[in-house]
Amino acid sequence: MLTRMKSAVANFMGGMMAGGSNGDHSGGSDLPLKYPYSRPEFLGLSPDEVECSADHIARPILILKETKRLPWSTGYAEVINAGKSTLNEDQACCEVLVVKRRPTGSSTPNRTTMDRRRSSLPNGEGLGLRENLPTSTLLRPTRCLQQTHETSEDLTFHYWALFDGHAGSGAAVVASRLLHHHIALHLQEVMEILCTPNLLPPTCLGEEPINHHLTPTSQRALTRAASLRGAAGAPGSPSTPPTRFFTEKKVSPESLVIGAIENAFKDMDVQIEKEKAVYNISGGCTALVVVYLLGKLYVGNAGDSRAIIIRAGEVIPMSAEFTPESERQRLQFLAYMQPHLLGNEFTHLEFPRRLHRKEVGKRILYRDFTMSGWAYKTIEDDDLKFPLIYGEGKKARVLATIGVTRGLGDHNLKVHDSNIYIKPFLSCCPEVKVYPLAQSEHGADDVLVLGTDGLWDVLSNQEVAEAVSCFLANCDPDDQHRYTMAAQDLVMRARGVLKDRGWRISNDRLGSGDDISVYIIPLMYGNKQN
Amino acid sequence: MLTRMKSAVANFMGGMMAGGSNGDHSGGSDLPLKYPYSRPEFLGLSPDEVECSADHIARPILILKETKRLPWSTGYAEVINAGKSTLNEDQACCEVLVVKRRPTGSSTPNRTTMDRRRSSLPNGEGLGLRENLPTSTLLRPTRCLQQTHETSEDLTFHYWALFDGHAGSGAAVVASRLLHHHIALHLQEVMEILCTPNLLPPTCLGEEPINHHLTPTSQRALTRAASLRGAAGAPGSPSTPPTRFFTEKKVSPESLVIGAIENAFKDMDVQIEKEKAVYNISGGCTALVVVYLLGKLYVGNAGDSRAIIIRAGEVIPMSAEFTPESERQRLQFLAYMQPHLLGNEFTHLEFPRRLHRKEVGKRILYRDFTMSGWAYKTIEDDDLKFPLIYGEGKKARVLATIGVTRGLGDHNLKVHDSNIYIKPFLSCCPEVKVYPLAQSEHGADDVLVLGTDGLWDVLSNQEVAEAVSCFLANCDPDDQHRYTMAAQDLVMRARGVLKDRGWRISNDRLGSGDDISVYIIPLMYGNKQN
Repeated sequence: MLTRMKSAVANFMGGMMAGGSNGDHSGGSDLPLKYPYSRPEFLGLSPDEVECSADHIARPILILKETKRLPWSTGYAEVINAGKSTLNEDQACCEVLVVKRRPTGSSTPNRTTMDRRRSSLPNGEGLGLRENLPTSTLLRPTRCLQQTHETSEDLTFHYWALFDGHAGSGAAVVASRLLHHHIALHLQEVMEILCTPNLLPPTCLGEEPINHHLTPTSQRALTRAASLRGAAGAPGSPSTPPTRFFTEKKVSPESLVIGAIENAFKDMDVQIEKEKAVYNISGGCTALVVVYLLGKLYVGNAGDSRAIIIRAGEVIPMSAEFTPESERQRLQFLAYMQPHLLGNEFTHLEFPRRLHRKEVGKRILYRDFTMSGWAYKTIEDDDLKFPLIYGEGKKARVLATIGVTRGLGDHNLKVHDSNIYIKPFLSCCPEVKVYPLAQSEHGADDVLVLGTDGLWDVLSNQEVAEAVSCFLANCDPDDQHRYTMAAQDLVMRARGVLKDRGWRISNDRLGSGDDISVYIIPLMYGNKQN
Repeated sequence: MLTRMKSAVANFMGGMMAGGSNGDHSGGSDLPLKYPYSRPEFLGLSPDEVECSADHIARPILILKETKRLPWSTGYAEVINAGKSTLNEDQACCEVLVVKRRPTGSSTPNRTTMDRRRSSLPNGEGLGLRENLPTSTLLRPTRCLQQTHETSEDLTFHYWALFDGHAGSGAAVVASRLLHHHIALHLQEVMEILCTPNLLPPTCLGEEPINHHLTPTSQRALTRAASLRGAAGAPGSPSTPPTRFFTEKKVSPESLVIGAIENAFKDMDVQIEKEKAVYNISGGCTALVVVYLLGKLYVGNAGDSRAIIIRAGEVIPMSAEFTPESERQRLQFLAYMQPHLLGNEFTHLEFPRRLHRKEVGKRILYRDFTMSGWAYKTIEDDDLKFPLIYGEGKKARVLATIGVTRGLGDHNLKVHDSNIYIKPFLSCCPEVKVYPLAQSEHGADDVLVLGTDGLWDVLSNQEVAEAVSCFLANCDPDDQHRYTMAAQDLVMRARGVLKDRGWRISNDRLGSGDDISVYIIPLMYGNKQN
């Protein structure tokens, strides 16, 4: 239906692959790129094809080549923006990773030397972090659906990710290459616990195994017996196993995976910060990742991309967006407690518009960090400062600068013409939602849709669900390409077609001029894995 | 069914009404009480009856006398605890209030003198706050269903509230007497806006009326036209009305009511703090209030009481509880940013249990403020401090002291045997949820249930919904007492009956030994009011 690649205006892209100052917000950095700019590895594009993909006039929709296949027959499509940045600043990654278990016997890992085999990571790059890895671990990424040589000692997880860059493509490229390895490293730390059936995570590693290897039921009974002894701290009676503490919160294996994803985002962000000293890593990016592990989907989101499950035509939201409006109270609370972060130029209060000096003494609508409603206050001199949160919807900004409040990178981002850093107000922490995939049956048309904000700015959850459901219903259920075709259809619906008055979608609405990237992940394969 | 009042053990209550040191956690204060301890005014109990109600053995369930009636035939019932405090520390208030409009013509109110007529407040007490009131306003509370003499200039609102005190009854008593007046004062400030149909709240009071008295549609059109002019700040063209600003956030009238309730809670808390200098106001309290105004129910909650709507047998939650567990991340974030609040005795990290010095160097499960999952960290000396949040469920505590994290009062509350104040971690700010009551029809069995935690600790939302629906279905629909009988039934189900092994409810579960207070508010009256 659509030409996969057009090269009409490819020439103006000349030199864009060279790195350095090329309109990519590199700020004239003389440092080398950590990774060259490219499109997602799984697309398998040649440098020429990458250049051709960046045609802001034709905006060709890229899909997987027929020779390429993603895990679970995942569909993927993307398109570049209509000119807001030279490069497509979205990035994507999809992998099946195998985490090797530590050799049995080393229950307390030696945490002093670095695994030499980590040089097997892509491009020979290490993670440059976490120097205290166990000595004898192997982290081996595999690609696509090819059979992995895992043993029962291994832990396999599937991984899909979208990154939406801003103010440069550097952070998005680096995160798309490395975030999954950080997740793998954190999962490796707890994989023995995760792989042991009926084991609740021990509170403290290295305790007597009697407290570790209880089934959930016996552990609960033990804790209950202990806590009924009261608060005075009496030791366990001879008839109960030795417990040194009476109340002990039980932690689920699932929450270890959530913690691993959360801390992996943190490590990724720290790595970007550190490596900016030696590499040119421009801008920042949102991150939306899906980890499928031991029968469950974990969706971690930091930014304004979105994930929804479509199940029997019904929408199940799997992420929430983090924007100046959705995070207003967190940001105001931080500014209220650390006013120096506002550099005497901003106020933590929110007003519906800028105020004028001549209005001092009048009564103005405002919101403080404790409020979700509005009230009037008398305007004082301090209120004339620019509000920390200003604008509405897609135009809402933190510190008049940025419209998304979670993600990776942005360590050097400052308010224009000032020394006020934005980063303290940004969070790299994802919110992780869990979907127990293997617990229920899914049909061929039940899917998880991931999209960057270019998709969701112009299509509602309901519109996406209807479009995907309708498209898949008209496909051959056995066609492996149906999910990629559906993704292509979605991108087409969000981009629209170029008319006299710009890109237009259905009902003559404006199409998205942003980069758009979409995964469509069929859920029936999750059942088959377990 | 139940004896309304028993006096078997009334004698041990002797002197409890006198104020001062009587086991009411007054801390031996020599200051006078601001209000004498009592039960809710609408119960109309004599001092003798109040004393008799505090029988911890019989635990009589109090209901409205047949001669008393609450607005909308609201049902109410309460019972004292099984001995955890001498007094019933729950309090309740129900009123219909009329807020008088300022005389027309004073569009910019004179905000320098105090309304002299505020001495019409109960007990001759002023609110002791907000000295900058308009000169010519009247706030006049009315009671029960008697016809109020309001004019079209007035704003009437209905008010129901529950307060659950701790560490003394003082704050709950004061809040039950005054919080509605604070709400009325804040509503008075915006009543002209609220009472004008189709008026969006003006951003700044005292601007040209052309910007104020637009219908929502024309205001939206105006704003859109203005913002399309772009970001450069070009003044309005002659063909459009003069607007000095292009982007201006629109604020709904509803959000003014929410803001009024939020700020009223804040003022109430400040008043308690200030008046502790001259009165003995012991302890703190949660607050759950319902305001019915102009066709909408506003449910404001600060604490662990709960409100649910039961509509056609289905539950609609109208509040969320604020506890150390539900507010963990807010509390940890505050402690992380202001570590001095922990007095070098606590750590902001959460661990599943206390740690021992000999465990330093081992790996322990922890959660930081950014995490909802768990991970392992190496134990350091600092981790041996007591965790800011500790315990599970009803036993969870902030700073090892308090199990509820929002409410009024508690200004003097400290960690035992230390100088560490709890108050910085507590919030007096309610979360306000809105239910558009007048927009839909409600039957006689559709109700709003408010209960203190004594109810919800032992009965689930579903159990309450089933009990109430079943009870009301078996009542005469025209019986004005059916809601009070249903409330009595609920309290009975939560308290249970005294057996050999304590208070027992259905399925031989433990009944609540806490104070229990319940409103059942029929919703059909909301339709009739509009």
